[in-house]
Amino acid sequence: MTAKRHRDTIGIDLGGSSIRIGLFDAAMNLLSSHSMPTRVAAGPQAAVDEIADAIRLLLHKVSGENHAYEPLGVGIGSPGPINLRSGILGLLPNLPGWDNFPLRDAMAEAIGLPVILECDANAAAIAEWKLGSGTVTGTSSMVMITLGTGVGSGIILDGKVWHGMFGMGGEVGHTTVDPAGELCGCGSRGCLEMFASANGLLRLTRALADSVVGTAALRELVASPGGFTPLQVAGLAETGDHAARLAFERLGTYLGIGLANLINTLDVPVIVVGGGVASAWPLFAESMFQAIHAYSVVYRLAMPTQREIPENDRTFICPAVLGSGAGLLGAALLPHLELAAQTIDPVVSQIQEIAK
Amino acid sequence: MTAKRHRDTIGIDLGGSSIRIGLFDAAMNLLSSHSMPTRVAAGPQAAVDEIADAIRLLLHKVSGENHAYEPLGVGIGSPGPINLRSGILGLLPNLPGWDNFPLRDAMAEAIGLPVILECDANAAAIAEWKLGSGTVTGTSSMVMITLGTGVGSGIILDGKVWHGMFGMGGEVGHTTVDPAGELCGCGSRGCLEMFASANGLLRLTRALADSVVGTAALRELVASPGGFTPLQVAGLAETGDHAARLAFERLGTYLGIGLANLINTLDVPVIVVGGGVASAWPLFAESMFQAIHAYSVVYRLAMPTQREIPENDRTFICPAVLGSGAGLLGAALLPHLELAAQTIDPVVSQIQEIAK
Repeated sequence: MTAKRHRDTIGIDLGGSSIRIGLFDAAMNLLSSHSMPTRVAAGPQAAVDEIADAIRLLLHKVSGENHAYEPLGVGIGSPGPINLRSGILGLLPNLPGWDNFPLRDAMAEAIGLPVILECDANAAAIAEWKLGSGTVTGTSSMVMITLGTGVGSGIILDGKVWHGMFGMGGEVGHTTVDPAGELCGCGSRGCLEMFASANGLLRLTRALADSVVGTAALRELVASPGGFTPLQVAGLAETGDHAARLAFERLGTYLGIGLANLINTLDVPVIVVGGGVASAWPLFAESMFQAIHAYSVVYRLAMPTQREIPENDRTFICPAVLGSGAGLLGAALLPHLELAAQTIDPVVSQIQEIAK
Repeated sequence: MTAKRHRDTIGIDLGGSSIRIGLFDAAMNLLSSHSMPTRVAAGPQAAVDEIADAIRLLLHKVSGENHAYEPLGVGIGSPGPINLRSGILGLLPNLPGWDNFPLRDAMAEAIGLPVILECDANAAAIAEWKLGSGTVTGTSSMVMITLGTGVGSGIILDGKVWHGMFGMGGEVGHTTVDPAGELCGCGSRGCLEMFASANGLLRLTRALADSVVGTAALRELVASPGGFTPLQVAGLAETGDHAARLAFERLGTYLGIGLANLINTLDVPVIVVGGGVASAWPLFAESMFQAIHAYSVVYRLAMPTQREIPENDRTFICPAVLGSGAGLLGAALLPHLELAAQTIDPVVSQIQEIAK
């Protein structure tokens, strides 16, 4: 027990199926952690009480009988939308009935520590920025795109998460990449999420299986009685099935158009691509880079001569490195960013281990 | 002559055909001004020397024999691209042969005052933010889209112009609104500029004249031996010609898609639409708002309940008010923003008068 213990932080990764809690020291070493299923039906107050109990156990494990031990604070990464000013949850597809719950205040009340609330996509972006891919370039501005069931994103500009006027900045997944495209769940048409998410890949795969380029193997996969997964499409693509490969190439093309718009608008130095679908990077990266090159004048042209920019001077676009642990790490970083002006010394390899 | 005189600033609006210079007091009253043709062929150093002479005359007119009088600084709004870090001009279509000229340092050398260089689109955005439409809401974040020959834009986030890593942030005119669209001059495809600029309107008009919905009057206009102008298309639209009206509606639709992407990405509170084409606001505003509503989930949905946002709580999208004077005003504001932490008290009506 050292005097530094007051810089320990607690991260909470709140998900629709599970809740992960981690106690970290100031160097972001994981001291102790706990996971529990999300009992959605029991409601948000029950979850908050359960989380508070779990945190007290973690703290006791680490501090023993030292009652003076008090961490810096608690960070929560929650599915969005959240009203970040009031700390109140919006209508969350995976947490039905939890809307309008004052999560931040309820958690602070239950645990007696400062609580910082953030959207999970922003929490993951913070982790990649401070402890993951962002550390390679030491950038103060970065965008993280998370290709999961949907497409999430977190925008960090000049060292701060960009929230926008309603805390809804960073809905890059719902920017339009095909104005004549199909209706998205959000009500718009041809959103990036319709192409570059797990669901988007399944949609692209079905369309290709039904088309003239569809292969027998892909048609068989798509017709599986129990449905099919992005991982199965990737497996087929890796065997060389050209229709399955084309599905990932199309995903890459649309992702590239979306990222090109982002680069043209913000000229950010780094874009990190994370989420489950990003693990298929080798299958979509080439078509993604081709589309970015084709659709972004800012990516292509050097200043001030308008010569082509050498490849290593352009916006750096790379896969995320922290994996599914990014949300928890980002949550635990929130108290540092919001409550202390402290710089984290990243030990990326160590962190990658935690993230596994 | 008061002690406040050291807060006077000089603005320079550098254009391909003319250069405007204005001396403003701290309240942004125009004290004296001068215009001259841009002698492009004489080269940038000759222009800098001419500008310096003109500034000395303006200063003499205002200060008389008071040799202690020294304004705060000089702001220049220049066509882009500019390397803002080095103050060196890029390849400027309207100023051939001026590329690689160190405009900022040459001007500072010639006049002996601090010089702040900025892209003209960003200068106009600063003026609208501090003295124009932005003052209505008192916002610290705003995007200005300028619909001129091309589509320019300036992004102000948290009280600062967002430049991006190469000073090329804000190329919203080259974001893609139709991935299958025609090639743009920038080398990309289906850029916003291909639809929402003066040239874009002419293109849309020609296509409509040739189509089944083309009217005799529009076909006649398009076939004019001397070419035709956006103003003529607007005139025809105002007489009720439905093909001419449709040209502006299409412009509005694509502009709306571009703005929807911007709102989804940044959730900015205010977007100001300026430039010559913006004066046709009544002809394209309805289709623009329809497209923004159709393509932006962030514009449509309230936080945290995901109910529809009441119209007056949404991103505020409005025409610019400063007209063609915005560039000069913005240039003169640059020294205040960069060299002094002073707040400008806007007197919008007065400013609007200056801008005429």
